[in-house]
Amino acid sequence: MALPKYYAGQQCSLARSLEIVGERWTLLIVRDAFFGVRRFGDFQAHLDVSRAVLTERLAGLLEAGVLTEARGSHGYREYMLTDKGVSLWPVVRDLLAWGDEHCSERGPRRVFRHVQDSGLVARDGSCATCRRTIAPSDLIVLPGPGYDDHADDFVSEALSEAHRILEPLRGR
Amino acid sequence: MALPKYYAGQQCSLARSLEIVGERWTLLIVRDAFFGVRRFGDFQAHLDVSRAVLTERLAGLLEAGVLTEARGSHGYREYMLTDKGVSLWPVVRDLLAWGDEHCSERGPRRVFRHVQDSGLVARDGSCATCRRTIAPSDLIVLPGPGYDDHADDFVSEALSEAHRILEPLRGR
Repeated sequence: MALPKYYAGQQCSLARSLEIVGERWTLLIVRDAFFGVRRFGDFQAHLDVSRAVLTERLAGLLEAGVLTEARGSHGYREYMLTDKGVSLWPVVRDLLAWGDEHCSERGPRRVFRHVQDSGLVARDGSCATCRRTIAPSDLIVLPGPGYDDHADDFVSEALSEAHRILEPLRGR
Repeated sequence: MALPKYYAGQQCSLARSLEIVGERWTLLIVRDAFFGVRRFGDFQAHLDVSRAVLTERLAGLLEAGVLTEARGSHGYREYMLTDKGVSLWPVVRDLLAWGDEHCSERGPRRVFRHVQDSGLVARDGSCATCRRTIAPSDLIVLPGPGYDDHADDFVSEALSEAHRILEPLRGR
């Protein structure tokens, strides 16, 4: 991923954002990071992406300051969202909602609840119980009516149950 | 753009959304459509994109039902957002806001005001005056403190002044 790159007539913040997160894999990696994926092998197995592409996209996200890396408790290198990365949550949430609305006949594939009061969180990020806009770290993600993930990789299995956003997945 | 395409482990509404809008050009075309661009030549001049890529992306957006096409008053083919396309507004708005926050030192490149009461519209889409979340068709876009577009194509020039979202650009 070339950063920063200049495009004539694209002196726009959307264009700058898309330099960093403007293709499928990048935002799927960011989504998985919100869902608690931290290890290279887990991203790879869940996204079914080649090692070369994943390596390049992770490097781009590190360079852009969206992800940071650290050595985890078992010696594995782990990738986590920075504050800049966490601030992408509304984008991920809106794209999930748009896909649920237009590409999921049986309703949302995943739903979100507010940790503190269990309120269902709407598409605009507001809690049905307390009406506040909920930060991603205060959200639980769980399978919704349109859930149809039958893959057997570690991440898919971990996300078949309720999971708190940004917390590392159980068993890792 | 291949639609629909299946990725193992990607039974997620975000993945489905990114099938349609998951790369830079596609969302820049959608942004320009919100800003009132309707003609092939105007998209091309403003985005500095090749005819081949633009043709492919427009075809994908038509196939996905994000854009629709019609013959305009001067006989030119025009591309306009469908309701499905207009419902991408929160995604475009959030990506603009994220880019303004992280990639624009002098502040927002473009700001939005509510047509009815001139209230400044915040990143979450709410109007500072009436507090409501404003639909894109009720927004005016105008240059902000970080505005630095000096390109001289028709679209850049038209957007150097206040413009109502979704209305065709003046002079077209």
